[in-house]
Amino acid sequence: MTEPDIFYILGNKVRRDLLSHLTCTECYFSFLSSKVSVSSTAVAKHLKIMEREGILRSHEKEGPFIGPARKYYDISISRTYVATVTPNVFWYRGLNLTDSRGGTFSIKVNLPETTDSDLPRLVTQFLQLNRELEKVLQALKSVERGRDLLMNRIKERYLHEIGDMTQLAILHYLLTEGNATVDELSDRLNLKEREVVAKAEELARVIPLKIKEGVIEIDVERLQSEGEEHGGEG
Amino acid sequence: MTEPDIFYILGNKVRRDLLSHLTCTECYFSFLSSKVSVSSTAVAKHLKIMEREGILRSHEKEGPFIGPARKYYDISISRTYVATVTPNVFWYRGLNLTDSRGGTFSIKVNLPETTDSDLPRLVTQFLQLNRELEKVLQALKSVERGRDLLMNRIKERYLHEIGDMTQLAILHYLLTEGNATVDELSDRLNLKEREVVAKAEELARVIPLKIKEGVIEIDVERLQSEGEEHGGEG
Repeated sequence: MTEPDIFYILGNKVRRDLLSHLTCTECYFSFLSSKVSVSSTAVAKHLKIMEREGILRSHEKEGPFIGPARKYYDISISRTYVATVTPNVFWYRGLNLTDSRGGTFSIKVNLPETTDSDLPRLVTQFLQLNRELEKVLQALKSVERGRDLLMNRIKERYLHEIGDMTQLAILHYLLTEGNATVDELSDRLNLKEREVVAKAEELARVIPLKIKEGVIEIDVERLQSEGEEHGGEG
Repeated sequence: MTEPDIFYILGNKVRRDLLSHLTCTECYFSFLSSKVSVSSTAVAKHLKIMEREGILRSHEKEGPFIGPARKYYDISISRTYVATVTPNVFWYRGLNLTDSRGGTFSIKVNLPETTDSDLPRLVTQFLQLNRELEKVLQALKSVERGRDLLMNRIKERYLHEIGDMTQLAILHYLLTEGNATVDELSDRLNLKEREVVAKAEELARVIPLKIKEGVIEIDVERLQSEGEEHGGEG
């Protein structure tokens, strides 16, 4: 299989929205279709393109209710893409996350002095920065691999212990975006604002949240202090 | 101006080729048109899209010969884009390079243990990796800012001292890609293979190169040892 032309895939808002939903929960066709603002024909077309390009995989599975089997989709790649566009440098690369590990990365960047002008010296400095860039890309792969593994674990645990997809979707959004307004979550999850607040309050029983003036965020201080209490008990 | 939809721009091979040429030398319309394998109407359309999206700027300038003014294009953004697509995380961000500096960055990534399963603890670890990710992105900005500044300096010095655009294009390619085959450069620069070799040999008088079995690369050892000699003379 050739490298999927990821930029083409990401260059469309509906496809980006579909990918967002797919990372957060198990998705079947009519669920995905209900979450985006285009026709189901358009959704089918976008899913087909992403399946053809090797980004998605689909399988049929019996639903929880009597009726025909549903077609489920999930993302089948684990990659990070980097692209730089400046007047002097244009460059991009896809990084495969599955072969990366944890570690410590030390990166040192000296920006050029205005007095540097000797050509071989400038070239030497550029090659040095190329080596630092490779270290940055290793660190990026490692962080993203870690976040992917952790999110996978979080999804599994949440569904196992609590079993509420909407709460999980809010947690997923808070973890990847940092915080969220009730309005954003209402649009994203296709729920009424008061339903979002009710679900966030349920989530807050498991993971401490600050819900204030329409903004929801993880209460990092309480999360840490509760973690230490747990540690103290053990 | 809204953020240009960079993924859409990068999702097309002709546009990617045009961007590559634009980073390496001053480009006017008919020059760009001669370097890619589509009609000049198509090239005009792609340039117009990129200008509209704020990626390119154009200006008219008298050419070196008698005749109408030529339209020149250059890239008007300095950004790095990162996107991650996994079954659990989908995320992207554009980084502005102009406000970044040099520095030392220390990044530490612990991948989760298979025994970790307590939800608050998993969430805490995820938030820790989010902080490491921010450091990685700062390091990436810094490296890319440095490479942009250095390449700008290298282009200026090369044109000032040697004044040969084709030699500079070969050097630009070697610096950003690591090495090049004669065939790749022949395609990229739209030159015959023997012309590429002749130009590379001229470039090698300024920057030491290894040219062997159709592969050209910078001779890092000689570059460094000559740099040290220079240092000794000073």
